[in-house]
Amino acid sequence: MLERCIGERRLRQIQRGVQNMKLTFLCLLLTLLVLRGTIGAGKYGTPQQDFIELRQRFISHPHRALAEQNQPEPKPKKSDKDDEPPLRSLNDPYSLGPKISDWDSQRADWIHRHPERPNFLTKTKPRVLLVTGSSPKPCENPVGDHYLLKSIKNKIDYCRVHNIEIFYNMALLDAEMAGFWAKLPLIRALLLAHPEVEFLWWMDSDAMFTDMAFELPWERYAPYNLVMHGWDEMVYKDKNWIGLNTGSFLLRNCQWSLDLLDAWAPMGPKGPVRTEAGKILTKTLKDRPVFEADDQSAMVYLLVTQKEKWANKVYLESAYYLHGYWGILVDRYEEMIENYHPGLGDHRWPLVTHFVGCKPCGKFGDYPVERCLKQMDRAFNFGDNQILQMYGFTHKSLASRRVRRVRNETSNPLEVKDELGLLHPDFKAVQHHAS
Amino acid sequence: MLERCIGERRLRQIQRGVQNMKLTFLCLLLTLLVLRGTIGAGKYGTPQQDFIELRQRFISHPHRALAEQNQPEPKPKKSDKDDEPPLRSLNDPYSLGPKISDWDSQRADWIHRHPERPNFLTKTKPRVLLVTGSSPKPCENPVGDHYLLKSIKNKIDYCRVHNIEIFYNMALLDAEMAGFWAKLPLIRALLLAHPEVEFLWWMDSDAMFTDMAFELPWERYAPYNLVMHGWDEMVYKDKNWIGLNTGSFLLRNCQWSLDLLDAWAPMGPKGPVRTEAGKILTKTLKDRPVFEADDQSAMVYLLVTQKEKWANKVYLESAYYLHGYWGILVDRYEEMIENYHPGLGDHRWPLVTHFVGCKPCGKFGDYPVERCLKQMDRAFNFGDNQILQMYGFTHKSLASRRVRRVRNETSNPLEVKDELGLLHPDFKAVQHHAS
Repeated sequence: MLERCIGERRLRQIQRGVQNMKLTFLCLLLTLLVLRGTIGAGKYGTPQQDFIELRQRFISHPHRALAEQNQPEPKPKKSDKDDEPPLRSLNDPYSLGPKISDWDSQRADWIHRHPERPNFLTKTKPRVLLVTGSSPKPCENPVGDHYLLKSIKNKIDYCRVHNIEIFYNMALLDAEMAGFWAKLPLIRALLLAHPEVEFLWWMDSDAMFTDMAFELPWERYAPYNLVMHGWDEMVYKDKNWIGLNTGSFLLRNCQWSLDLLDAWAPMGPKGPVRTEAGKILTKTLKDRPVFEADDQSAMVYLLVTQKEKWANKVYLESAYYLHGYWGILVDRYEEMIENYHPGLGDHRWPLVTHFVGCKPCGKFGDYPVERCLKQMDRAFNFGDNQILQMYGFTHKSLASRRVRRVRNETSNPLEVKDELGLLHPDFKAVQHHAS
Repeated sequence: MLERCIGERRLRQIQRGVQNMKLTFLCLLLTLLVLRGTIGAGKYGTPQQDFIELRQRFISHPHRALAEQNQPEPKPKKSDKDDEPPLRSLNDPYSLGPKISDWDSQRADWIHRHPERPNFLTKTKPRVLLVTGSSPKPCENPVGDHYLLKSIKNKIDYCRVHNIEIFYNMALLDAEMAGFWAKLPLIRALLLAHPEVEFLWWMDSDAMFTDMAFELPWERYAPYNLVMHGWDEMVYKDKNWIGLNTGSFLLRNCQWSLDLLDAWAPMGPKGPVRTEAGKILTKTLKDRPVFEADDQSAMVYLLVTQKEKWANKVYLESAYYLHGYWGILVDRYEEMIENYHPGLGDHRWPLVTHFVGCKPCGKFGDYPVERCLKQMDRAFNFGDNQILQMYGFTHKSLASRRVRRVRNETSNPLEVKDELGLLHPDFKAVQHHAS
C-alpha cells in the first residue's frame, strides 16, 4: 500500500536509504567497539574493570588461587590438543616419580664425597636456591611481562646481596600438574639434582622483596623442614584456607620433604581429580570458595588431617613477612620510610610484598588493574631504592621510574659509609672453614 | 535541472542515499584501518614490515646502533620535559665524575683489608659481575618485554652454572648519557662500589648465551684490561666500525679502565655533541652510516686514534664468540646439534648469539619482526636445552616452548651421569685457599 502512495521507485530509494543507514550504524558500532578494546575507555572504565567490580561483590577474600581459577582457559590450538594428557580418573593414583626412601643417606654420602660443594656456606648459613618462574608464553596482558621482568630483577638484587642462587623456571615439566601445581614436579627435580642445596625457597612471580637488608633467621629453622608464613591457630584450629601461604616458603632438601611432596601432590592432577578434590577442600576448610583444588588449600588440608605426621617439622612463621599480603602494606610505604628502616622484615618494613590476586599476566585479577600496577610500581621502587642507595641514587618518588643523585660523588669512593651495610654484608663473606 | 526531471523529493532522497553511502564507506575504511593496526594483515604484511623492507634497501650492514638510532623518539610527556637536561654545548666538556688517579692503590688497600671478599675465587678464576639492563618503561612492542624476560632467564642460567653475579639495571643514572651510552656511568659506579669485582662483563639485553658449558679462558686475559670480540686488522688497519663489538665485553676493575671510560665518554652527551661526534665517526670509520655517535664506533675511533695509549691492554678476541652475530648462526643450530657439543664456544657451538638490529622492545628493527622473534625463540631453546638436560628434559623442538622427558627417572638420581658436567662443574667448586 505504501508503494501506491509514494511510487515504486521512491519506495526503493527509501528502502536503500534505510539499508544504508543500518549498515552505517553497524559499522560505526563495530568501529567503536574495536577502538574501545584497543585504547580503553578512560574514566568510563574498561571492560576488565567492569567485570572485576561485578566479581568483587562475590568474592570476600583476596587470594591468588581464585584469580588463577577465574582466568579463562585459552582455547587449545590444534597442535596443543595432541599434547593434552588424558584426564586422570579418580582411582588412578598420581606419582611425582619413583619412590625414594633413602634420600638422606644418598645425599649425606654425596656431600661427604664433595667437600668443595658444601651445603652450608658458614656455620649457620645454608646454601639456598630461590626458585620462581612464569609461563613460557607471552602474557595475555601485554604489560604483564614487564612486571615479570621487574619482579625478577627485584629477586636478582635481593639474592645477589644475600648470596642466594636463583632458578627461573619456564618449562612445564608435567602437563597434568599445570598452573599452581607445576611447582611440585619442579621442586622435586631440583632437590634431587642439587644435593648441595640445603634449602629450596619457592617464591611466586607476583611476590617482591621490599626489605633488601633482612637476612632470614636460619638458626631458628634448624629443627624444621618446611617454613611458611602463617599462624598455627588459623591452620590447626580454624582450618582456614588462608591460614598459611604457599607463595613464599622454604623446603629443606631431605627425605621428609620428598615424602611431603608425595603426600601433597595427589589433589593436583588436572581434571576430575582436581575438581573433586576442590569440593573436599571447600567442604573442610573455613571460608574457602568453590573452585578446583589449589596447592595452598591442599597444604592446609594435609597439615590438618595428618597433623601428627607433619606438624612437628613445619614452622608457621608470623614474626616477619616471609609473605606479606600487599593490600595492608602498600599504602604505608611512605610512613615506613618516615619511621623505620630496612632490616626489620616485619609490618614496619616487610621482607616480601606479595601481590596475591593481581594477576598482571592474565586478563582478569581480583582487583582493578590500575590499582595493582600502580602499587607494584611502588613496591618495586621501595625495594629498588635500597639497592640504588648503594650507588648514591634514589627514585624521585615511589611512583617514578626516574632516579636522582642523593650523595655527592667523591674521588675516595671506598671511604663512603655503606649506610645499609648491603655493599659488603656479613652474610656474604667468604668463610674459610674446615669442612 | 535534475530536480525538474525526477522531482524535488526524489532528488533529496537520492542525495541522502548518496551521503549515507559516503558515510558508510568512510566508516568501513576506518574500521579496516583500526583492525589492520590491531591484528595485522597476515600474509599481506604489516605496516612495520613494509617500512623495514623499504629501509633494508638503504642499509648494507646489520647493526645494533642504527636500529637504536632509527627508533622514533617518543614525544616527551609534560612531566618528562622538566627533566630533559639542557643540551650540552660543544665546548663544555663532559665528565663521568670526579677524577680518581689512585684507584689501583685504593682498591689494593681495600682488598688487603677484606680477605673475606677475594677478587679471585680460585688461583685463575676472577670474581666477575655480569651487567645488563633495559629501559624502566614497558616496551613499545608488547612482546618485547617477554623477550627481555627470556633473555635474563638465559643469563641467570649461565651465570648460576659459572658462579658469576648479575646486576640488572633499569635506572638511567645520567640523562645526558641516554641510550647505548647509559652503560658508561653505570659501569663506573659499579666498579667503584665493588672493589671485590675483578672483571665487569657488560652484556646487551639482546644477547643470549648459547653455550652453557663454555668457561671463559680467564688466564688468557691476565695481561689485559679490556676484552671485546673483534679483529685487530679490521680495527687498526681498516678502521671498520664493526671491527669490534661493544655488546659483550670484559673490563677489569682498575685505574686504566677508569681512564678508558673517561676517554670514551666525551662523544656520548645527547644533542649537538653526539650529533657532531657522529659526523666525525662516519668520516673516519669505514662503512659507517650517518647517525649520531654510538659507543661502539667511538671505541673503534678511540683505539685507532690513541693506539699507543690503549692497544697494549686491549684484547680483540676472535677465537670464540664472546659476541656472535645472530645472522650467521641461527640457521645452523640443528647442524651444530648433529655434529658438535657444548663447551666449544666458537662457530661450532657459539657462546653468545647476539640479536643485533632486532630491537624486539621497540617498534622498528633492521629485520622483519617475525624472523627476529622466531630465531630468538630458537636461540633461547638451544641454550635452554643444555640446562634442561641436567634435569632429564629437552624442548620438543627448537621452535617449541614445550618440553619432554629424555631420561627415565630413577630412585638413585645421584648415580646419573652429569653429561655436560653442568650440575657440579669444576669452575663452581669452593676452594679453600690461603688468601
